[in-house]
Amino acid sequence: MDKFPRILGHEAVGVVESIGELVDGFKQGDVVLPVFHPHCEECRDCKSPKSNWCSRFCDDFVSNTRRYGMASRFKDFSGEDIYHFFFVSSFSEYTVVDIAHLVNISPEIPVDKAALLSCCVSTGVGAAWKVANVEEGSTVAIFGLGAVGLAVAEGARLRGAAKIIGVDLNPDKFEIGKRFGITDFVNPALSGEKKISQVIKEMTEGGVDYSFECIGLTSSMEEAFNSTRTGSGKTVILGMEKQMLPISLGSHDLLRGRTICGTLFGGLKPKLDIPILVDSYLKKELNLNGFITHELSFEEINKAFDLLVKGETIRCQYHLENEVKQVKESPEESSEEETTDEITLETAPADFRFPTTNQTRHCFTRYIEYHRCVAAKGDDAPECDKFAKFYRSLCPSEWVDRWNEQRENGTFPGPL
Amino acid sequence: MDKFPRILGHEAVGVVESIGELVDGFKQGDVVLPVFHPHCEECRDCKSPKSNWCSRFCDDFVSNTRRYGMASRFKDFSGEDIYHFFFVSSFSEYTVVDIAHLVNISPEIPVDKAALLSCCVSTGVGAAWKVANVEEGSTVAIFGLGAVGLAVAEGARLRGAAKIIGVDLNPDKFEIGKRFGITDFVNPALSGEKKISQVIKEMTEGGVDYSFECIGLTSSMEEAFNSTRTGSGKTVILGMEKQMLPISLGSHDLLRGRTICGTLFGGLKPKLDIPILVDSYLKKELNLNGFITHELSFEEINKAFDLLVKGETIRCQYHLENEVKQVKESPEESSEEETTDEITLETAPADFRFPTTNQTRHCFTRYIEYHRCVAAKGDDAPECDKFAKFYRSLCPSEWVDRWNEQRENGTFPGPL
Repeated sequence: MDKFPRILGHEAVGVVESIGELVDGFKQGDVVLPVFHPHCEECRDCKSPKSNWCSRFCDDFVSNTRRYGMASRFKDFSGEDIYHFFFVSSFSEYTVVDIAHLVNISPEIPVDKAALLSCCVSTGVGAAWKVANVEEGSTVAIFGLGAVGLAVAEGARLRGAAKIIGVDLNPDKFEIGKRFGITDFVNPALSGEKKISQVIKEMTEGGVDYSFECIGLTSSMEEAFNSTRTGSGKTVILGMEKQMLPISLGSHDLLRGRTICGTLFGGLKPKLDIPILVDSYLKKELNLNGFITHELSFEEINKAFDLLVKGETIRCQYHLENEVKQVKESPEESSEEETTDEITLETAPADFRFPTTNQTRHCFTRYIEYHRCVAAKGDDAPECDKFAKFYRSLCPSEWVDRWNEQRENGTFPGPL
Repeated sequence: MDKFPRILGHEAVGVVESIGELVDGFKQGDVVLPVFHPHCEECRDCKSPKSNWCSRFCDDFVSNTRRYGMASRFKDFSGEDIYHFFFVSSFSEYTVVDIAHLVNISPEIPVDKAALLSCCVSTGVGAAWKVANVEEGSTVAIFGLGAVGLAVAEGARLRGAAKIIGVDLNPDKFEIGKRFGITDFVNPALSGEKKISQVIKEMTEGGVDYSFECIGLTSSMEEAFNSTRTGSGKTVILGMEKQMLPISLGSHDLLRGRTICGTLFGGLKPKLDIPILVDSYLKKELNLNGFITHELSFEEINKAFDLLVKGETIRCQYHLENEVKQVKESPEESSEEETTDEITLETAPADFRFPTTNQTRHCFTRYIEYHRCVAAKGDDAPECDKFAKFYRSLCPSEWVDRWNEQRENGTFPGPL
């Protein structure tokens, strides 16, 4: 978790720019969602309908590239590793994502809406849909109305829940929550001596059918459990307790028919279930629009963090301009650019130190782009800086030296 | 729980001797299983497929008669209440059971086998079948190999589990357990420093699919939980923790896809699911024979308790002789006896203090039987004692006085 420097970001949408060796199922130009939760489709668990666990990959969930010895695919200017984050690292124009973390989605869904399905909305909606299996007419309590909690409400609303009780210390969340089906609100700061579970039991003739913990506090996990009905109440834990503390449950409360479980990514198998959510959005069922409260440019990202810390945003989106836009808006052109004779993939150095062609291609392509750019705009043109940045961070310096030599003596692109 | 004197016993089979007013669905001579777990068939939960909770009746599970103001239906010789036990009280030739606690079963199943379905075997098999939904090829760990734990094994075996690990301090239980599908055995006394969960994880490449706690100890509930696989492991609590202590679970262990739940009566809805188990026995699938290790007469009941305390029995059965046998073996004769002109139900006093005819009829019938008996055998015949015992415990003394008067002046049976 604490390896720095790293490229953060794990909720995004993008377009496939290039594809590594031995990769099936994706092609350049595909609109894809990167997801932190793996789905290899091949292990025992991925093949089982019982859960969304991928036992092949789930055990390492904070690291770099899966199938390249967990090596980093990012370098800083001096050639040192920059670490990945949750296998996504989306605060970047380009990233390298294992296909176990990538979902092909319909290009019909606007990218700003699609990005919400990359983590929080899928997690919340999935928990109500796949994990709790909330049914029509049921009662629901949600502890914590951040984006995940609100997404649980949205999922419960879609499933036809009759009463959806939101629990949050921020009184503004009730109005916001109504957009996603919250029907009742409990503010723990105003419930006096009474436990929240007691308040909820009184509101629901003995307890809710389903409760969801979306904060990550043991006390609210326990209260969520105690808020459910005897006999069939079910509690789903979505919040991550930062200190890994245990929770304490009454053994008789369990014995009398209660269930508690936890889930990552809302129990969804990304490649199977996200396309269903996309479809639901396109059919105007799933409300995604309500989650986006702010849109900022990438340069304003620190402002986005401030909003997040202050609890003033549900989801703040930023758009990476320049190259990504270019790829997104004209994949053909971008594709052409990469397949001109001068820089065909065949000519890329074959003995690169990473066992894939992706970084090789990126390094080589950016080197070419830089030289094209300065040829067109002049050595000092600021618009060429980004290409220089890229190739310098991606290419080993001995390669750059060699290519520079080859360019000078007219043998470029030649062998390394 | 602590009301005495009471008639214990909650696992039995019997024959309907007589039926109260407003009671549908049963007739004299029906072979029935009394069950401690109610199934009213009318409340929201009984009508829902989600659980076996009967929210109408489940909240009072230690008391007397449900629909008679929780009054006792048993009296001692002095007319004082004898308390019921778990709504069954089967250590008695006759008992009074609310139909919410009674299941009609096929008379084809031998009564000694049927009795096992009245609690322990149903609870264990049901937990594997209905609660865990154990699937073919899965791995199972069972903490505690008493009758309930062995019944879980039997349920898991029937569901096709590939590996069934029994955990018990008594080494004899492995051989016994093999009868019910136990394939592996762990004796905590022999596992040294290692936690049982660690031993089980090593035996199953990371944990079992399902674990069951059938002891009632928080430490083994926690170990059962920790024995399951990340991602989809499920733990079912069947044991009742006597001191109502809480259990402590790692919040991250939950978050990473584990489930824990509890169940009473194995998640079975008695009236719907017990007949399915009867059917399974009749089809020679469900092994009931293996559970019966001892058969004693009722007089030897203290010996049965000794065996139980020493852990030397799985299930010890006793047979109530005399009247019950008589009713069972010749229901027609017994039925005739109760419908002679002299003691037709119509002539029974209508204003009895219990709002049902059951106790009225019993009291009245036994009073008649006593006088028939002494008329035939003489005033001091010991075989008439039991009838005297019955009518004196069941009938208010003012009624007995009144009937005695009526018999003397030739107006019996007359109004009270």
